[in-house]
Amino acid sequence: MVPRYARPAMTAIWEPEMKYRIWFEIEAHATDKLGELGVVPESASKALWDWWATNPKIDVEAIDAIEAVTKHDVIAFLTWVAENVGDQARFMHQGMTSSDVLDTTLAVQMDRAAVILLDDLDKLLAAIRTRAEEHKYTPTIGRSHGIHAEPVTFGLKLAEAYAEFARCKDRLEFARREIATCAISGAVGTFANIDPSVEAYVADKMGLAIEPVSTQVIPRDRHAMFFAVLGVIASSIERLSVEVRHLQRTEVLEAEEYFSPGQKGSSAMPHKRNPILTENLTGLARVVRGAVVPAMENVALWHERDISHSSVERFIGPDATITLDFALARLTGVVEKLLVYPERMQKNLDRMGGLVHSQRVLLALTQAGVSREDAYRLVQRNAMKVWDSDGQLSLLELLQADAEVTAALTEQQIEEKFDLDYHFKHVDTIFARVFG
Amino acid sequence: MVPRYARPAMTAIWEPEMKYRIWFEIEAHATDKLGELGVVPESASKALWDWWATNPKIDVEAIDAIEAVTKHDVIAFLTWVAENVGDQARFMHQGMTSSDVLDTTLAVQMDRAAVILLDDLDKLLAAIRTRAEEHKYTPTIGRSHGIHAEPVTFGLKLAEAYAEFARCKDRLEFARREIATCAISGAVGTFANIDPSVEAYVADKMGLAIEPVSTQVIPRDRHAMFFAVLGVIASSIERLSVEVRHLQRTEVLEAEEYFSPGQKGSSAMPHKRNPILTENLTGLARVVRGAVVPAMENVALWHERDISHSSVERFIGPDATITLDFALARLTGVVEKLLVYPERMQKNLDRMGGLVHSQRVLLALTQAGVSREDAYRLVQRNAMKVWDSDGQLSLLELLQADAEVTAALTEQQIEEKFDLDYHFKHVDTIFARVFG
Amino acid sequence: MVPRYARPAMTAIWEPEMKYRIWFEIEAHATDKLGELGVVPESASKALWDWWATNPKIDVEAIDAIEAVTKHDVIAFLTWVAENVGDQARFMHQGMTSSDVLDTTLAVQMDRAAVILLDDLDKLLAAIRTRAEEHKYTPTIGRSHGIHAEPVTFGLKLAEAYAEFARCKDRLEFARREIATCAISGAVGTFANIDPSVEAYVADKMGLAIEPVSTQVIPRDRHAMFFAVLGVIASSIERLSVEVRHLQRTEVLEAEEYFSPGQKGSSAMPHKRNPILTENLTGLARVVRGAVVPAMENVALWHERDISHSSVERFIGPDATITLDFALARLTGVVEKLLVYPERMQKNLDRMGGLVHSQRVLLALTQAGVSREDAYRLVQRNAMKVWDSDGQLSLLELLQADAEVTAALTEQQIEEKFDLDYHFKHVDTIFARVFG
Amino acid sequence: MVPRYARPAMTAIWEPEMKYRIWFEIEAHATDKLGELGVVPESASKALWDWWATNPKIDVEAIDAIEAVTKHDVIAFLTWVAENVGDQARFMHQGMTSSDVLDTTLAVQMDRAAVILLDDLDKLLAAIRTRAEEHKYTPTIGRSHGIHAEPVTFGLKLAEAYAEFARCKDRLEFARREIATCAISGAVGTFANIDPSVEAYVADKMGLAIEPVSTQVIPRDRHAMFFAVLGVIASSIERLSVEVRHLQRTEVLEAEEYFSPGQKGSSAMPHKRNPILTENLTGLARVVRGAVVPAMENVALWHERDISHSSVERFIGPDATITLDFALARLTGVVEKLLVYPERMQKNLDRMGGLVHSQRVLLALTQAGVSREDAYRLVQRNAMKVWDSDGQLSLLELLQADAEVTAALTEQQIEEKFDLDYHFKHVDTIFARVFG
Repeated sequence: MVPRYARPAMTAIWEPEMKYRIWFEIEAHATDKLGELGVVPESASKALWDWWATNPKIDVEAIDAIEAVTKHDVIAFLTWVAENVGDQARFMHQGMTSSDVLDTTLAVQMDRAAVILLDDLDKLLAAIRTRAEEHKYTPTIGRSHGIHAEPVTFGLKLAEAYAEFARCKDRLEFARREIATCAISGAVGTFANIDPSVEAYVADKMGLAIEPVSTQVIPRDRHAMFFAVLGVIASSIERLSVEVRHLQRTEVLEAEEYFSPGQKGSSAMPHKRNPILTENLTGLARVVRGAVVPAMENVALWHERDISHSSVERFIGPDATITLDFALARLTGVVEKLLVYPERMQKNLDRMGGLVHSQRVLLALTQAGVSREDAYRLVQRNAMKVWDSDGQLSLLELLQADAEVTAALTEQQIEEKFDLDYHFKHVDTIFARVFG
Repeated sequence: MVPRYARPAMTAIWEPEMKYRIWFEIEAHATDKLGELGVVPESASKALWDWWATNPKIDVEAIDAIEAVTKHDVIAFLTWVAENVGDQARFMHQGMTSSDVLDTTLAVQMDRAAVILLDDLDKLLAAIRTRAEEHKYTPTIGRSHGIHAEPVTFGLKLAEAYAEFARCKDRLEFARREIATCAISGAVGTFANIDPSVEAYVADKMGLAIEPVSTQVIPRDRHAMFFAVLGVIASSIERLSVEVRHLQRTEVLEAEEYFSPGQKGSSAMPHKRNPILTENLTGLARVVRGAVVPAMENVALWHERDISHSSVERFIGPDATITLDFALARLTGVVEKLLVYPERMQKNLDRMGGLVHSQRVLLALTQAGVSREDAYRLVQRNAMKVWDSDGQLSLLELLQADAEVTAALTEQQIEEKFDLDYHFKHVDTIFARVFG
Repeated sequence: MVPRYARPAMTAIWEPEMKYRIWFEIEAHATDKLGELGVVPESASKALWDWWATNPKIDVEAIDAIEAVTKHDVIAFLTWVAENVGDQARFMHQGMTSSDVLDTTLAVQMDRAAVILLDDLDKLLAAIRTRAEEHKYTPTIGRSHGIHAEPVTFGLKLAEAYAEFARCKDRLEFARREIATCAISGAVGTFANIDPSVEAYVADKMGLAIEPVSTQVIPRDRHAMFFAVLGVIASSIERLSVEVRHLQRTEVLEAEEYFSPGQKGSSAMPHKRNPILTENLTGLARVVRGAVVPAMENVALWHERDISHSSVERFIGPDATITLDFALARLTGVVEKLLVYPERMQKNLDRMGGLVHSQRVLLALTQAGVSREDAYRLVQRNAMKVWDSDGQLSLLELLQADAEVTAALTEQQIEEKFDLDYHFKHVDTIFARVFG
Repeated sequence: MVPRYARPAMTAIWEPEMKYRIWFEIEAHATDKLGELGVVPESASKALWDWWATNPKIDVEAIDAIEAVTKHDVIAFLTWVAENVGDQARFMHQGMTSSDVLDTTLAVQMDRAAVILLDDLDKLLAAIRTRAEEHKYTPTIGRSHGIHAEPVTFGLKLAEAYAEFARCKDRLEFARREIATCAISGAVGTFANIDPSVEAYVADKMGLAIEPVSTQVIPRDRHAMFFAVLGVIASSIERLSVEVRHLQRTEVLEAEEYFSPGQKGSSAMPHKRNPILTENLTGLARVVRGAVVPAMENVALWHERDISHSSVERFIGPDATITLDFALARLTGVVEKLLVYPERMQKNLDRMGGLVHSQRVLLALTQAGVSREDAYRLVQRNAMKVWDSDGQLSLLELLQADAEVTAALTEQQIEEKFDLDYHFKHVDTIFARVFG
């Protein structure tokens, strides 16, 4: 976790205090059920909850000190609780194993992280939608291979981004269901010393599903899927960020990240306004993606469990979720405040001397009976002149002066092919598909 | 694609012939609809389908030769079709762009690949289930950290694998829906020169959904998600393979890959029976996972499209699906024919002098009023003696001879804790959860 | 391996024929030495080499057929050789194990692949150098964050590329030494049944170093390092490719990939010239990088060896080297034939109204006694006006009209700061550092 | 960075205080040289060093507060220094750009990190060597595919590890040279406003080489190579860790991680001694490897620079080096204190009924004139009986009772092939190669 790329709500999920709070809740709920089953005295859970009702401070340092001796985190925690609650605490954790607590806690943390990320996605989607509707019919050049192709609208660009992040939300909801499971099945997962009803009870209390079969640990394919989805979302963040970076290039300058009055772009070049937020997001996408393969490598634990996954998760659990949360929020801000320059978009559209309309002429020629090969040749020879003139010549005028072309199409027919609105007649269709 | 790790049905999907067949179908269906819309003569699609009905050989070399000149694959193909069909072929591809054909074809290929993989998973699941039920109550030692922990059954191990691959199937169904979309939206995706109804028509014919918003290309977050899911499935294959490799170790030998009469394990050591299939699967899992990050790097195409994704997909499209198909089938064979040795499992279970029952004694002591710390100490000091004897001493006898223990529990009570069936009382519950 | 991204010389290294040829040479050289040591009759190696001297066709299908029965590739090969050579062939492979042959062969293949790649790098370096010297003083705008910064020369851009690929060559030479080792140490690497002098003899004949300690296999950290270096080289290819893609953007158009007369850029838009080679290279870089992590996952083989590495290497061995060879050659072609447009570079340089000189003015102001903060403010307020005018206003004129500025600097002094050559005074220094 | 996997010396390198200290030194050295060149007053650097000599506290919070306004870290730092040093500080950073400071600082940090890691490797190598010599002739079974193969010594296993980490050290020294460069070349790297001699001066003072050509930033292929090497080292750590984990398995138990008296292996199962350190190391290896691909993705910066690399490096710079330092130290401890059980090794060696000697018999038979195929068949049929008896039958006795075998070899000749020392005759040769 790098503090400058972290926001408090997500960070809190991964702090020791929060972890211990979840541990306690799991243990106490389990003790409730164990009491009901008669395995432990009902007084035990009462003692736990009574203490908890006093809203005790979680003394992380004290727990750490115990762990330094026992070299076992859960035992250290149980010891510390016992020091506070007293004798009744010995009934805690009856029949359970550390992983029951650890893995269910991780599930709770990831589930809560997913809730925040889903909310982030909602906000990003709302921001994109607002700007998409604002620029639904703002003409701009569509580019393939970085080269001018045919006109689109700026709203269409954003509609694609909306659809992409809406898919990301579906994926995250899918992945959230994957990891929101509770396992309290005891050593090697047989429920030998703990009744399955305890698991069901705690799962319900913690808002999780039960894990159908655990082997002391919750299987790590679930986590691998979760981090893979974060990696895909990060890649979509990169895509939109790269788009903004391209649009802000000096020669393009169709849009810019918001530039606040106090901001300095460069220590040396005061005129510069750099797309540093989206460049930063491009980097953060790499960071989040960096968690994907380690998470997959965690799947093949040995036999019923080994603990190699644990250290990996201590890094990627916080890092990937905190960074993605930050990145989604940052991207939302970029979209909301993006400076959009329709005049410049129009200017760029115009600078190619009408080459963007070449395909329509090509089609008109073939429909007028010219073979596809000839039509291609006719359009290309004029297009090349325009291209070589750096947009100073007009494709329309050249075509109207080309005898082979006018043998097939009238000047009027040619001119009709140079109509910008022609390209936007299905924008509404696409918007209806995307925004419903 | 490495031939030895490939099966014909999956390989066929990615061969040039198949690609061109799908190209033709997409073009011909589109021409049908264009004819219906009056954009092209209805005779055009008839000419195409009439030719197709003759079941013409796809002349890959001829198409390649044309491409060598045009340096454009779709134009090369259209040219070749026109050479065969004649004049009417010029109406093909009207208003479309190459990517309409290429990306929809890739969607068809991935969709068909997914169908095969789903079938592979069904077969694997069936094989695992059969063996799981066969060994539902076959006792074996559960291991955490590679160390004997407590008893499980071999059926439980397989139940976990079943649940894991059932999740993989859900994921693949999810991922399949992600990539099964049809885009026929023309240059930069505006439908300027092609009506959206053509896309809908072709989508329906090819068994795909429409792509709500494309930008000449189908957005690559879909593909990234697909390959990420393949990577997760591969990781689960690795997990089960590693389990088999461990079980086949000389010192463990609880199960073995089937060893056919003609097979030689080593050119030098004729006695060897090596788990080479599952070692191979471990490697293949790495290969499939290797596709995940490149697929994610493909997402951030520039503006409406660049073609950097294409070369990546030429590798990972075939490689990841063909390899995963092979791996799933190989794993199915391993599971079906796995030699399982229950006697050896029992022997291994017994070799620890009863240490696997230590936790039950620990619990019994605490329930008898001994503090958790004391109980732990009492059990551990006897357990350590057994451990140091390499299983020659019996934990039961040592405990029965320990005055501090017998102060809390009778000899009879101690003995009751050494019952194997105690551990299996919830096997049925778990099986019901997993197999329904 | 994807044929369209493969060149013959590199591909040949990985074909079965070549593999079997190397196998034979290793076996025959070993038999030579074994004969000299008296372990086998000297007639044995003579028989082998006599047959070899007849330049026999390697019958890959026959060997495959034997392997289908034995399920062991080396035994299959030895059987086939014995069928051809006769009785004396039984002395081959004495005391050796399959891995001795397989791993040494892989070393030979990787070594030869490295030789080709080093030659590729030499050609690329030569091409870059030629173009760098050609454009040593061609002014162009330097860009940070995609935004105009200060002037550089096009030669400087290429000098950086040269230095980067020169480093890549050093790395590859380092990596080549890593993998060029010969292991003939027998089962589990103890030389129990084969004298170390055999290894030394074969190593010398095959142009390899001896492997100081092998464990039946050559340790895979060597291979991991090799593929990691290929991944770094691929990343440098990506960097230069991305540069070209940027330069070819419609709005920038300072350079273009060579566009051959017969080439069609788009089936729909005949005017387009797309940077498809460098886009393709961007994708191929992802493919080569995709080999890095699997190669690293191959390192942790179990005990003296497991065979999980093998399937991975069957993919990444050919794929990474063949693809990188193709990519380096393609990039060399791109550089050699790159269309460079100095006029357009100058035009782009001029379009910012002199903003690129802002830093010099800033420095001059501070040197004239203005505080850094004030100097920054003065320059920035004029720079912002130029920026907002889209380059229509002149920074020079605005500064000369700013009383606070002229209080510190004369008009003449300001004008001196707008000299382009000022920026190029150390180009020669840098070239001397890079090109020697 | 996860505190539990971090050691102070390495962590300190990456703390803000250290970063600012290095920043200051770079700026102050540069000012020295600028003074000497007459660009700034010589009094400027004197003022800086005088202040520095007072050993001022680096007020990170104050600098952060300034950055919150300026949104530029280097300007914030310079402002803070100016607040402390006074008027003379305005001469700092003359002609430099932020990246000159940032990238050179990163080089210093990585260089210092490399020094620590090299020292870690030395300590690890020393530990491995000590244990290797201690167990140079301790017999143990060599295993391929997890299956008993032929005898090795425990020292040989460690010799391999030694050779592997010695290679890792070579790689790290290579990678260190790659990243230890100083760039002070000003905006877009032209030295327009700063003389190259300043770079040379600072490089010398900071123990770095000059960067031959920078483009405002130091090219990121250098960093990619560095992190790739860390990934390879991590993979070698994984390999040795996996070896220990295997050796500690209950059924194998040839070695164990040191188990301290106060340590508890499991909250539920007090008898357990788990290889948790090496499992942890296995996970940490995944973490370090996770930095490799992001570092490679950082190479393709846009034009002269973009800042996408920066956020990635804020994570992987500290994470990969701190984690690797911790891992190397932990592994050193594991090796130093490893509990090795020669008796158990011998017991495991013996449990196969002499099967490990099968190859020697095979060779003896062929040398006695039996065809390789027949020899294989004879050995295998007896070996299979031993195998099926789970080591209860003796291969020696069976062979001596096999008429076809004794037709070729006397009983005495057969027995001679069952000599363990035969396998160790070249241990000394291998040790000489590895340890010199």
